[in-house]
Amino acid sequence: MDSKAPTDFTRLRRMHERGHYDRESIHAILDAANHCHVGHIINGRPVVIPTLHWRDGDEVFWHGSSASRMVRANGAGGEACLTATIMDGYVLARSGYNHSINYRSVMCFGTPRLVDDPDEKMAALKTFVERLFPGRWDALRPPNDYEVKATSVLAMKLTEASAKVRNAPPGDNPEDTSWPVWAGVLPVTTLAGAPQPDQFVTPGLIPPPTPQVEV
Amino acid sequence: MDSKAPTDFTRLRRMHERGHYDRESIHAILDAANHCHVGHIINGRPVVIPTLHWRDGDEVFWHGSSASRMVRANGAGGEACLTATIMDGYVLARSGYNHSINYRSVMCFGTPRLVDDPDEKMAALKTFVERLFPGRWDALRPPNDYEVKATSVLAMKLTEASAKVRNAPPGDNPEDTSWPVWAGVLPVTTLAGAPQPDQFVTPGLIPPPTPQVEV
Repeated sequence: MDSKAPTDFTRLRRMHERGHYDRESIHAILDAANHCHVGHIINGRPVVIPTLHWRDGDEVFWHGSSASRMVRANGAGGEACLTATIMDGYVLARSGYNHSINYRSVMCFGTPRLVDDPDEKMAALKTFVERLFPGRWDALRPPNDYEVKATSVLAMKLTEASAKVRNAPPGDNPEDTSWPVWAGVLPVTTLAGAPQPDQFVTPGLIPPPTPQVEV
Repeated sequence: MDSKAPTDFTRLRRMHERGHYDRESIHAILDAANHCHVGHIINGRPVVIPTLHWRDGDEVFWHGSSASRMVRANGAGGEACLTATIMDGYVLARSGYNHSINYRSVMCFGTPRLVDDPDEKMAALKTFVERLFPGRWDALRPPNDYEVKATSVLAMKLTEASAKVRNAPPGDNPEDTSWPVWAGVLPVTTLAGAPQPDQFVTPGLIPPPTPQVEV
């Protein structure tokens, strides 16, 4: 197991028995999550922005408009915290206090770098598309210079990261287990709906499978 | 329409046509989201923590362990940014650049207050449980003093908030629409799995409906 030592920031204080610091756990949750939330400090205030992310080796990537506040904050060397969470179920206990959720989450701290080498940026964007839709990149109308310039790609090493997982029935106090109320887990998962082709699709073309749907 | 003027922080810069500042839009998305991410500044660094939230009137609430870094940061008067996002689908265009997602998100800025009046705290926790599982609070083993003290409740006025929504087919460039690749929306939604009673449930008790599942 390829483990990372927790830092003062990633060491779990609350429910530390739920913590994982190994690379495999962190990678698996990042890969399974369909989006993430990135926190920045902008003008001294916390700002949390939802976005899609992708992983390549031991780096996590995301992208944004080159003109966005988020990209400018990171381009100026600002720190970020990227958190990806998958909610797996509501955990219903016999006391309010022991209610919980089953979930998998990853929290990554670092100072992202702007991927500004044109070849690396193009390769990163290809990885983003191919991760979601294998084979799609080469089928698309190729990017033009304007599009590549208008898109900024950020990368952050997974050197200060932790995972937190709860996957269990309710943890009721022993004296509560006979309390007459239903207790257990109400699982939730992500379901793919029927693909909705737009009005221009050439008849006969078929949609790719919906990504990150656990069936 | 009960509208809020955007502040310098909530006024949308990117894709501003997707922005909504009216109370109804903000409330509806907060109510539909099954969890949120709260950003804080802790020791000068951004920290983004997933949690469940609930709304009561024009305030958003969340809770945490009284001993957590998050609660201590807020108890010390720190600012927060609460962002809740519902991903509704992958939007596949004919160029990489025009790919997108359909989503509903809300971003709320403010300085949360600790709800420390015992009656108000208890009422807030009841609202939290009842929002998810109507009728459940009175069926539970009542909270004891230790549990109430160990739980902190935070509340933040929705005075500086914005919503952002995309719900549309791909926005391809007109000259791309005949490109021979499938384009459209792959919807995703949250599905409830079969309830998993724990080993102690009295036979005959039935589970409540899974919350926030759109069917």
